[in-house]
This record gives sequence, C-alpha cells and structure tokens, in this order.
Amino acid sequence: MNSFTFYNPTQLVFGKDSIEKLPQMISQFTDGKKILVTYGGGSIKKSGLHTRIMNLLADYEVYEFGGIEPNPRLSTVKKAVAVVKDKDIDFILAVGGGSVIDGTKLISAASKLDNDPWDIVTRQVTPTEVVPFGTILTISATGSEMNAGSVITNWETNEKLGWGSPLVFPKFSLLNPEVLYTLPANQTVNGIVDSMSHLIEQYFNEADNSAIGDAMIAGVMKEIMAAGRVALAQPDNYEARETLMLGATVALNGFMRMGYNGDWATHNLEHAVSAVHDIAHGAGLAILFPAWMKYVSQHQPARFAQFAEDVFDVDQQLSESAKVEAGIKGLEDYWQSIGAPSRLSDFDIAADDFETFADKTLFNGPFGNFYQLDKEAVIAIYKLAE
Amino acid sequence: MNSFTFYNPTQLVFGKDSIEKLPQMISQFTDGKKILVTYGGGSIKKSGLHTRIMNLLADYEVYEFGGIEPNPRLSTVKKAVAVVKDKDIDFILAVGGGSVIDGTKLISAASKLDNDPWDIVTRQVTPTEVVPFGTILTISATGSEMNAGSVITNWETNEKLGWGSPLVFPKFSLLNPEVLYTLPANQTVNGIVDSMSHLIEQYFNEADNSAIGDAMIAGVMKEIMAAGRVALAQPDNYEARETLMLGATVALNGFMRMGYNGDWATHNLEHAVSAVHDIAHGAGLAILFPAWMKYVSQHQPARFAQFAEDVFDVDQQLSESAKVEAGIKGLEDYWQSIGAPSRLSDFDIAADDFETFADKTLFNGPFGNFYQLDKEAVIAIYKLAE
Repeated sequence: MNSFTFYNPTQLVFGKDSIEKLPQMISQFTDGKKILVTYGGGSIKKSGLHTRIMNLLADYEVYEFGGIEPNPRLSTVKKAVAVVKDKDIDFILAVGGGSVIDGTKLISAASKLDNDPWDIVTRQVTPTEVVPFGTILTISATGSEMNAGSVITNWETNEKLGWGSPLVFPKFSLLNPEVLYTLPANQTVNGIVDSMSHLIEQYFNEADNSAIGDAMIAGVMKEIMAAGRVALAQPDNYEARETLMLGATVALNGFMRMGYNGDWATHNLEHAVSAVHDIAHGAGLAILFPAWMKYVSQHQPARFAQFAEDVFDVDQQLSESAKVEAGIKGLEDYWQSIGAPSRLSDFDIAADDFETFADKTLFNGPFGNFYQLDKEAVIAIYKLAE
Repeated sequence: MNSFTFYNPTQLVFGKDSIEKLPQMISQFTDGKKILVTYGGGSIKKSGLHTRIMNLLADYEVYEFGGIEPNPRLSTVKKAVAVVKDKDIDFILAVGGGSVIDGTKLISAASKLDNDPWDIVTRQVTPTEVVPFGTILTISATGSEMNAGSVITNWETNEKLGWGSPLVFPKFSLLNPEVLYTLPANQTVNGIVDSMSHLIEQYFNEADNSAIGDAMIAGVMKEIMAAGRVALAQPDNYEARETLMLGATVALNGFMRMGYNGDWATHNLEHAVSAVHDIAHGAGLAILFPAWMKYVSQHQPARFAQFAEDVFDVDQQLSESAKVEAGIKGLEDYWQSIGAPSRLSDFDIAADDFETFADKTLFNGPFGNFYQLDKEAVIAIYKLAE
C-alpha cells in the first residue's frame, strides 16, 4: 500500500425512515432558517418527494433552485450561487442524484468566494469556507453523497473536469432505497455500471499489497451485480434496491481505496466523450471500460487474470490469457445482459471525433495510474469501442 | 438491513511516515500547548518510540501518564483524570493498543465532568464535552483507534463494561505497521483473534439482507488469516503487518456493520471471564467463540453453513450439518495453527466459576442479537469451552 489519510465525516442516514430525519439533521449544522433546495428536472415533484420535503421544512424559509442538469453545467451553478448570495442562504439541501449533488458542491464552495466558480474547478483558488449542505439521494450511482469530489461541465469551453475539497463532504446524506422504485430502467442500469466502474477503477491500482481493498471491492461488486439483476426484474424489490444504494455509496466513499489511488484513466476517457456529446456517464463507461481492458491487459495481463478470478470466479487452472479474456467477457456479458450500451456507434459517435477526444484527455499529459496512456493508446482504445 | 446512521470522523493516517505527522495533526485540534501522553507498561520506552514522540512534541509542554494496564482499570483512569484537571491539559495523546486507547477515551470524557468516571460507563451521566485526543497505535487488535467505544474494568466490583459516545472518536490515529515488528508473538496472535472475532460477531447478525456487509466481512477475514500466518513466520514482513493493521481497524470501525448490529454475545461471555481472571481478551475469545458456535449452530444452522462457505470455501455440495461442522473446525484449526489457546483449562479456569460468570453475563437479562442466550445456554457454552 501507499501511505494514506482516510477522512470521511459525512453522516450517512440509511433506511425507510431516513428522509423524515431531515429537520433534526439540518439543526445540527445551522441555527439559521434560510434553506435553498436544489434539484434537477422536476421528477421529485411528480414523485411527491418535493411535497414531502416541503412539509418537513415547514419551520424554515425555503428557496428553490431546480433545473440542475445531468452533467451539471457551470452556467447553472453560477445562477444558483447568485441566489445563495442574494438570499444569504444558511444551508443547502441537494435533492437528486450525482449531478445535482456535484453541482451543489460547487454552489456551496463558490458562494463564499468572489471568484468565478470555474476558478475552483481549475484549482486557481482553494475554498477555505463553504455554505454547509446535505443531500437526499434520488438516483444511486456516483457515490457523490458520501465523498468530496465533483465533476462540472463547462459548455463554453467543452471541458468536463473533476475537482474536490475536504470542505465539500455533505454534512449528511439521507438514503431511502424506496425512492429508487420509480427510476426509469436505463437510470438503474447506468447506476449499476457507474458504481461497478468506480470499483473497477480502484481495483486496477498501482500500489503493492491491496489485499484488504481487493477483497472488499470484489465482494461488493458481486453483490451489486446480483442485486442489479433483481432490481431490473422487480423495480420495487427493497432488498435489491438497498444493496444497490449502499453498494454505490461504499464504491466511492474511500472505504475501498485505502492505500492506493486506482487507475481512473477510463473516467478521463469518458469525460472527454460526454464533454462533447451529452450522453450519460454510466453509458459512456459501459462502452469504454471493456475497450480499456482489452488494450491495457495486453501490457499488464496478471492483474486482469486476478480480476477474472476475484470477480467472475474464473477457473484457476486456465492459462493467464484465457483468464484475462474470460474476465473481460464476463463484464461485457453482464453489462449487455442488463441492457447497457456497448459501442460508441450506438450514440452515433464516430471515429472523426477521436482526435478531439484524445486531445481533451491529454490536457495534462499522459494519464492513468495503473497503466499510463499516451495519445496512440487513447486513440487505440476509442477504436476498440467504436 | 435495519435503518442505520454511519458516522466516523476519525482521521486515519496510515503508513511508514504517519507518526511524523503528529505535530501537524495536533495543531488541527488545539492552539493550546499542554499535552498529556498516556501509555501502558513502558514498552514504548524500550522500543525508542517514546523518544521519537517526545522529539516530535518539542514545542509542547508535555506531561506523561504511564501504567495503563491491559483491561484498563477504573482506578487508573481516575488518577489520570486528576492529572488532566490539575494541569489543565489541552490535548491527550494515547500511545498504545486498545487498552490504552479505551482508558484514554474515559479519561477524555471524565475530565470535563465532576462525576465519578464510572457514572459514564454505567450511563448515569452522558458526556457533552471532552478533552480532544488522538492516538498512535502500537498493538493492532481492538479497532479502538477508529471507533467510539471503550471497555473498562472496575476491580472493586469485578465488572467489565463497555460504553461509548460519538464524542470519543479519536480526532486522529497514526498507524505505522513497522511498530508491530517487535510485538511478542502472543500479542500478534491475540490481535488476529480479536479482529477476526469482531468480524464474526458482526457476520452473525439479526437483520435480513446484509449482502454488502457479508461480502466485506468474509473478504477481510480471509486476508487477515493469510497475513496472520505470514506475520508470525516473518515478524518484520511489512505487507503482512500492513494487512493485519488495516484489517483490525476496518473490522470494528463501522464499515462492516451498516444496517445490522451483529450478535456480540461472545464478547459478553468473554468479558465475564476476564473481569474475574486477568486473561487477554483475544485469548478468551479464541476459547469461547468455537463453543458459542457449537451451541448456537444447533438452533440456527443455516447462517453457520453460509459462514463455512463464505470464509472457509467449504464445498457447496455438502449437507448443511457437514458445512456447519467444517466451518467451526476451520476456525478452530486456524486458531490452533497460530498458537491461540482453545480451552478455559489452559488458564486453570474450571467449572466452579461458571455460575459466577453466567450471573455477570446476565446482569441485563438474556443477551445476543442473533441468538438470545439465557442462563442454561450460557452455562452450556462455558462447559463446551471447559
């Protein structure tokens, strides 16, 4: 392992009764009364969750900021920051999935600064104070509800960049698996792919000795895969939703990556695609991960053989190359079985974009902790996903 | 799963360079200069760790309180509280294993109250403020370095009781696996047994659907078992010590038990023994867990069969009763292979104590979340361990 510091102060409140704890949770963090509720496209109004939350916030002065889009946009964050400053908001409540929460993290940090919020994302300025915020999770996928990272898209520059600060851990996140019952199937699929992708990124790490992490990652991944099948067949199966929701949270809250960094090249490959084409992050990952694996396993086969054994219980007697192939096929087969996309062409994305994508991925030079990718490698991977 | 709230704000700092971060860690939590260093029997002086810490604290006004014993005693805690109050200590640094840290938790909480510290343990009074403390871990076993629980022995009443408060999470814990190289073998063994026992207690839970927890518990347990063998053969094997140290921490920091409580009857059975006989907690658990399993598996065999499959990879084709037997034998064999004790008689503890033990365990009535034990059951289990 590498040396590391683990710190995660988010209060994770989980279960059928979690949302009702909202007022007592907020009161831990502010004596103020001005709450901004941030959300996405309005599905929380259709589902009745909006009304439920407003009833719980009856003692507060509540402002609303809806319309935070998938792949949350800098331009949207700027509008919300203006509201926080204008109304002197005491606490922000993000109600949504990873996009709403990621956007709210930047709103929280930028509202205490005079800078353009993009300066935070590009690390021109470091936040030292934030408006505290909590979350109610409505889509289980990114793990943003219990980490301090955020990904923001700047459509003026076609950039999609990640940033983070220990100040933007949510103060609390309220997770009720029942809210997932009404998710469209494709969002359930994207969530499964996204949380599995986080586990895979961490599994392919650059450090020696990640025995504890490997064991947790492989174990959680298998449970997500099993629960994913059940949830797609029975959208209101509580136990399956419970496993998917908790699995997605622990997949990216730091539990799994103590002592190593993971690879994260495929996330960069995906961000370049979704900075140009507005496709869901999970869909992009389902297309790009098998391609990344096919390319990198030619150079570092041993870890891929171990992946096949740990996650897909591939026969230990097989040759290394047969294990590698079986592991990648196991992942492709699972994702196809749940209806995830597998080719860039499914989204009419063609080879004439690959140079543009590659240049975006390489803005900081070659990347990938487990295996470093240069431009030739990046183009080769996009071609494998064509 | 049951509803739950997970909260763990301890900063876990891990690696060969962790101890050197001490001054910067303390400065996050106090501007004051008065530090009390708590420790045990003085092995930290022999190992040179004491000198290293004093050098790191050169800018502070340092007081020392040594002599916190295994199974830390109320009488000792009272003496330390007097020092904290007398010297107006700003921050406490616990250097040691679980006993030193458990004792320091009570020192930290009792120093802000006029009550007898025992009133905190017996829940007569709830702490609302504490003297902040951090830890440098020298024995890897109890997980106390990253949780908010503490076990204290009152020799005046022969009681050994657990208590906890969210205020007594260590602010930070510095873990360098190298400090374990010089541990006596029996302490390494006790640490392995203790951390495995925490995982087993949690595995045997009363809630439906603990898929994520089961996967993490079984995975971490297998890694601890493998690393334990290596560390006993090669005490300075860094990777093995690393796995044991991180494994023991995650075994009881809340990661594994989201959504259920675990059983915890065997800890109660053990505390009754070590409240009367001064035997190491790990030794007591190694003796009592197989006995508890033999008794309870007669009533709830299915979970024990699953344990055998998950942890000891027992053949799925076997009958349920054969699986149960193989799982318990797997655990007994492993513990015997590393030199853990297996019978109460190894410590000259005989049947004439069993009534006394049983009465102690039952002070709050029948106990055990997974399977409730009454007096008849308790006596039967002690007999199985005789």
